[in-house]
Amino acid sequence: MISVVIIGYGNVAHHLVKAFHKAKNVHLKQVYARSIETIEHLKPITSVTNSLELLAEADVYIISVTDDAITKVSSQIIGKNSLVVHTSGSVGMNQLKNSGRKGVFYPLQSFSKAKEVDFATIPFCLEAENDKDFQLLEALAKAIGEKVYHITSLQRKQLHVAAVFVNNFVNHMYKIGYDICNQHNVPFEVLHPLIEETSRKIQHISPDKAQTGPAKRNDVLTIENHLKMLNEEQKNIYKILTNSIKNGEKL
Amino acid sequence: MISVVIIGYGNVAHHLVKAFHKAKNVHLKQVYARSIETIEHLKPITSVTNSLELLAEADVYIISVTDDAITKVSSQIIGKNSLVVHTSGSVGMNQLKNSGRKGVFYPLQSFSKAKEVDFATIPFCLEAENDKDFQLLEALAKAIGEKVYHITSLQRKQLHVAAVFVNNFVNHMYKIGYDICNQHNVPFEVLHPLIEETSRKIQHISPDKAQTGPAKRNDVLTIENHLKMLNEEQKNIYKILTNSIKNGEKL
Ligand SMILES: NC(=O)c1ccc[n+]([C@@H]2O[C@H](COP(=O)([O-])OP(=O)(O)OC[C@H]3O[C@@H](n4cnc5c(N)ncnc54)[C@H](OP(=O)(O)O)[C@@H]3O)[C@@H](O)[C@H]2O)c1
Ligand SMILES: NC(=O)c1ccc[n+]([C@@H]2O[C@H](COP(=O)([O-])OP(=O)(O)OC[C@H]3O[C@@H](n4cnc5c(N)ncnc54)[C@H](OP(=O)(O)O)[C@@H]3O)[C@@H](O)[C@H]2O)c1
Repeated sequence: MISVVIIGYGNVAHHLVKAFHKAKNVHLKQVYARSIETIEHLKPITSVTNSLELLAEADVYIISVTDDAITKVSSQIIGKNSLVVHTSGSVGMNQLKNSGRKGVFYPLQSFSKAKEVDFATIPFCLEAENDKDFQLLEALAKAIGEKVYHITSLQRKQLHVAAVFVNNFVNHMYKIGYDICNQHNVPFEVLHPLIEETSRKIQHISPDKAQTGPAKRNDVLTIENHLKMLNEEQKNIYKILTNSIKNGEKL
Repeated sequence: MISVVIIGYGNVAHHLVKAFHKAKNVHLKQVYARSIETIEHLKPITSVTNSLELLAEADVYIISVTDDAITKVSSQIIGKNSLVVHTSGSVGMNQLKNSGRKGVFYPLQSFSKAKEVDFATIPFCLEAENDKDFQLLEALAKAIGEKVYHITSLQRKQLHVAAVFVNNFVNHMYKIGYDICNQHNVPFEVLHPLIEETSRKIQHISPDKAQTGPAKRNDVLTIENHLKMLNEEQKNIYKILTNSIKNGEKL
């Protein structure tokens, strides 16, 4: 049985609390939040506190607060030798300032409170200072999920940039597609199956092999026609990405 | 019963032949290809020819050849009053040069011969010169699929540009993510669930509402850190897309 205290009650913590509460091999001992009102409804399932001085004893303390607050909050965990981890994709393990052992417990997915989460599909990117602590985090992740990766702080930072491309920037491509459709009274849903197929494809073949389209074919005529249909900002993006795809071809 | 002749035997035609052959209300009368060897294996299910002068009589002729060849091939369909359509996303209906009726039968999805296709999920973008022909195309699409849209040639061209953004450019974002992972020995599969979630999200909420991340939050520090980790080309793309996301915020 691994005992856990969760510090913070945002999007990620909300789902971790639910999952740990249900997990067989985990004892969710306590949840901390700055304002007690946000966690009072958890009283039936665990102890709650708004004081970092009153943290219960536990094997693992999971800090899941805003990135900027991780260092400060960790430094306020006093007199505990247990493992303290954060859940961030972009904060180094060494930015934890507790006196004891440190680690990272980063679930790579986008969370919001309203949306159900299936931890079985979510990759846990774990890091610790030694093997024993890594195994502890691995056991904790396996208690609620299935996919565990050993990812160093440097790798995690790179993953975080990569995630900006495959999530935020991809979403922005969807937005431009959406704007073009809207402007011409075409329902955006016409593009949904293509979007789904594009994202599914790269689960089986690598993205460079999956590429098609006018840039890849160097279909100059189509590219010129497309540019005529776009506004300045869209045109700019179209050109740069088309060139970047062509550059890849040359390598 | 709608009788159909298919002209060309590429990726799209291959799947149309299979689907029409199985469809209850369609009689697949003939398939044409330049070189008879590519279609000889179809003899058990339909008549085959490599001569446009020997086309059978049918209600609809579907030209599914390379975009550049559509005009020429259509002009060689002589002495037929039936409806002639092409399957292209980027060619206008008026680029058909048959003497009779014209239309468009564009299945909006990415096809390859090796990959199974579920026409039930594919949007058929249809266009015709009059209501009666539109209804004929609608009946044909419904014989193998479910989703039918009336899309004009102008709208179809816009859809085609939008598809470049949500398919080719999205795939390029995946490629950059893939490169970053590779370079740092992180398995790209760690990002698969996030990619899936990002594409699924916009089936329910519009992409502008779905956006998150450093650009959206205007998190200058994170943006600066990310830029330091990228090569020149990636940096360029990162900056332009970040600015474009920020611009959207200002509107
Ligand atoms: N959301 C995601 O998609 C996602 C995915 C993976 C990892 N993460 C990481 O998980 C962590 C939490 O993210 P989140 O999205 O769950 O955050 P969130 O929903 O914005 O919640 C942040 C939490 O931090 C608390 N907090 C902020 N400053 C604090 C301080 N000085 N002292 C104590 N508590 C403080 C907030 O308390 P109040 O309610 O009192 O303000 C709130 O409970 C971050 O490190 C983030 O990078 C997020
Ligand atoms: N692939 C897709 O994802 C997709 C999706 C939607 C719509 N479309 C559209 O569907 C049409 C076909 O695309 P595709 O991907 O199926 O093409 P494809 O696989 O490249 O096949 C092209 C076909 O056109 C034939 N062809 C080329 N030039 C010809 C000519 N001068 N005379 C007679 N036949 C000629 C080829 O014959 P040979 O084998 O003898 O060269 C081949 O059978 C295009 O208009 C395309 O824009 C494609």
